[in-house]
Amino acid sequence: MSVATAIATDMNGDEIAGEMDQLGRRARAAVQELALASAEQKNTALRVAAATLRDRTADLLAANALDIAAAEERKIAPSLIDRLKLDAGRIDAMAGGLEQIADLPDPVGEVLSTWDRPNGLNISRVRVPLGVIGIIYESRPNVTADAGGLCLKSGNAAILRGGSESFHSSKAILDCLQAGLGKAGLPEGAIQLVPTTDRAAVGEMLTMTDYIDIIVPRGGKSLIERVQRESKIPVIAHLEGLCHTYIDGAADPLMARDIVVNAKMRRPGICGATETLLVDKSIAEQTLPEIIETLSAAGCELRGDEATCALDTRVNPATEADWRTEYLEPILSIRQVDGLDGAIRHIATYSSHHTESIVTDDAARAEKFLNEVDSAIVMHNASTQFADGGEFGMGAEIGISTGRLHARGPVGVEQLTTFKYVVRGAGQVRP
Amino acid sequence: MSVATAIATDMNGDEIAGEMDQLGRRARAAVQELALASAEQKNTALRVAAATLRDRTADLLAANALDIAAAEERKIAPSLIDRLKLDAGRIDAMAGGLEQIADLPDPVGEVLSTWDRPNGLNISRVRVPLGVIGIIYESRPNVTADAGGLCLKSGNAAILRGGSESFHSSKAILDCLQAGLGKAGLPEGAIQLVPTTDRAAVGEMLTMTDYIDIIVPRGGKSLIERVQRESKIPVIAHLEGLCHTYIDGAADPLMARDIVVNAKMRRPGICGATETLLVDKSIAEQTLPEIIETLSAAGCELRGDEATCALDTRVNPATEADWRTEYLEPILSIRQVDGLDGAIRHIATYSSHHTESIVTDDAARAEKFLNEVDSAIVMHNASTQFADGGEFGMGAEIGISTGRLHARGPVGVEQLTTFKYVVRGAGQVRP
Repeated sequence: MSVATAIATDMNGDEIAGEMDQLGRRARAAVQELALASAEQKNTALRVAAATLRDRTADLLAANALDIAAAEERKIAPSLIDRLKLDAGRIDAMAGGLEQIADLPDPVGEVLSTWDRPNGLNISRVRVPLGVIGIIYESRPNVTADAGGLCLKSGNAAILRGGSESFHSSKAILDCLQAGLGKAGLPEGAIQLVPTTDRAAVGEMLTMTDYIDIIVPRGGKSLIERVQRESKIPVIAHLEGLCHTYIDGAADPLMARDIVVNAKMRRPGICGATETLLVDKSIAEQTLPEIIETLSAAGCELRGDEATCALDTRVNPATEADWRTEYLEPILSIRQVDGLDGAIRHIATYSSHHTESIVTDDAARAEKFLNEVDSAIVMHNASTQFADGGEFGMGAEIGISTGRLHARGPVGVEQLTTFKYVVRGAGQVRP
Repeated sequence: MSVATAIATDMNGDEIAGEMDQLGRRARAAVQELALASAEQKNTALRVAAATLRDRTADLLAANALDIAAAEERKIAPSLIDRLKLDAGRIDAMAGGLEQIADLPDPVGEVLSTWDRPNGLNISRVRVPLGVIGIIYESRPNVTADAGGLCLKSGNAAILRGGSESFHSSKAILDCLQAGLGKAGLPEGAIQLVPTTDRAAVGEMLTMTDYIDIIVPRGGKSLIERVQRESKIPVIAHLEGLCHTYIDGAADPLMARDIVVNAKMRRPGICGATETLLVDKSIAEQTLPEIIETLSAAGCELRGDEATCALDTRVNPATEADWRTEYLEPILSIRQVDGLDGAIRHIATYSSHHTESIVTDDAARAEKFLNEVDSAIVMHNASTQFADGGEFGMGAEIGISTGRLHARGPVGVEQLTTFKYVVRGAGQVRP
């Protein structure tokens, strides 16, 4: 069997539309059953899926080998092939992720608040699932398990559209999730994978307003922008993490160094990595040399404003574009600013409103920064790399939303729910 | 001065785009100041605006007279002219509405939850304003005061686009709001009115993604649909209130009658009015005759399925279209269903997911209904006319959202906010 023919790329437009319609109908039909499923049922499905992933390690590796072979045939970049690759450790981690989701409290049915009215009506706000969630992602096959598991836990039906590169791997992972659903007596329509890698299927998904309640894209900027532009369905998206760390004039220099080095270099490729360092110019000469030394030694490329370039020849001039760039690489831009107000102004101009941190021993300035910086996550004396649902104690996350509506910041199971009002009366009529 | 020339309808496309850009810039500039304004400042602005509305009653009536004259000239329907009309009582009610908003607790800065992580980080979720809210509405001039007041209280800048019929009235009301802002030292850009009645301005608004964070349309179905179709900005909308009351087999017949009559006839034109009555067929013959009698006597037109038509000649046959129609008039469609499951099925098929109520003395059936009906508001033994932010104790509302994201149900000051995460550390770096 040739690798190429194993992927269903040969559907025509009508066939794709027909397939997507079927997927939508099955998801919609599954929603009511899922909303009423017990916590035990959903957790059984998650645990059985985890066990099945481990049991079928050999099958998963074989499916993954097909994807890897096809990727190598198409001369895809080694870094992308690394993202695509499964091994026993990654399969075990995926299974562990599903078990962690099973261990989370069930969000559905939680009474968020309840109150009595003077007329005797009792009103409660109760958490309920969103409905059908469409998830569009790129090459990492583990998203199939993570996203499927998070949607299931929160009582939603999932329609997953993975990257074409990971199609066989995702299909094999989906089979394990389906084994869990079957064992728990939950409908197959609860978690489905788009059965074609044709890009037209994404276009179909984005207009299925009758079937899909929300779209969550996970991937690079061009994917997110396409989804935001074309979708007729509301989108929860993580666009960019252009994060800042600001070293205030009253910062402890050692703490500042440790936080900056961690915020940039722990994992430069995650969205919570710091991209621009702002330093109060009054303490730049004292604090920057050691930070530059440590970062350079760790292999970080440095780009700075004029004053910073003057401090060390290893710092190259930054351009306007640098203040606007999410590197996701071991590159840091550095700018000296006119105290806290200068830092807040720079952030207001250039930030993607994801995560920003201030390092200072001055409590009043810290509070001013936390208050005035308008980002999803604001921090005092902590590394921006903590911007993560797991680190926040929310369990797994499907991403970090840089939008302001519905979900802002880490998107975990609670953010994949909505609520309804339950009103209990004894025959009240409105005067 | 001719009535017609007093309205700025003669801008060309570039002028409109330029005006809207100015509005957007001023709103965006006002946002930071508003987010940091104290509760006292905002409440002062609201109370001064209320007092100014009362003081300027004569001016408001004169401005309103221009709108009424223009509407009569254009032979607009009397019901629309009634909506447009201000009198001393309505002006006093508008002022009272602003005072009620001032009396609400300030939502901004509220700590929604706070927790400590094992590594010592303290994390809080803190309520913050959404940003700039664009409100597009039709002829009722009081929306200018209500929407402006709600946005201000929740720390948002408002760009208001009222109906062309109420332009002079809205402008005069805006001047009162501006008097309040001025007295409180808040920026003029906090509440602005689109200075042209040209429909092209709406198109501009819906694409101002850099300046407007959310669009709230208030009006008829065609306005809402246009906004949902054209907007590049997220929309919180109330599309339709096709609400149901279900009389269960175990209902108290007198309670059922009183609830149904109130749910339909108290104010047939509001979104929480019941449009379709469902009755368990096993008790239809016992309960329906008196309900039909009472509603007919009150002037309600009745349309029913075959079994219901057979009960009373005053009931005319309902068609499939009736189950799908939000009458907003004294018309009720009646259908006999196969018990609770039949009622839930009918609602799942035809409801707009706004508000549904069950009348029953059977607690288990009530809970099943409350659980399984997927609407923003579900009720037991209460009139659907209670679907209202004021009746819920939320103070004023800007509408009732039939969407599932961000705001579901009544949209009050809390629903016009988002949140951010505030992380407080002592130098933590991520391992």
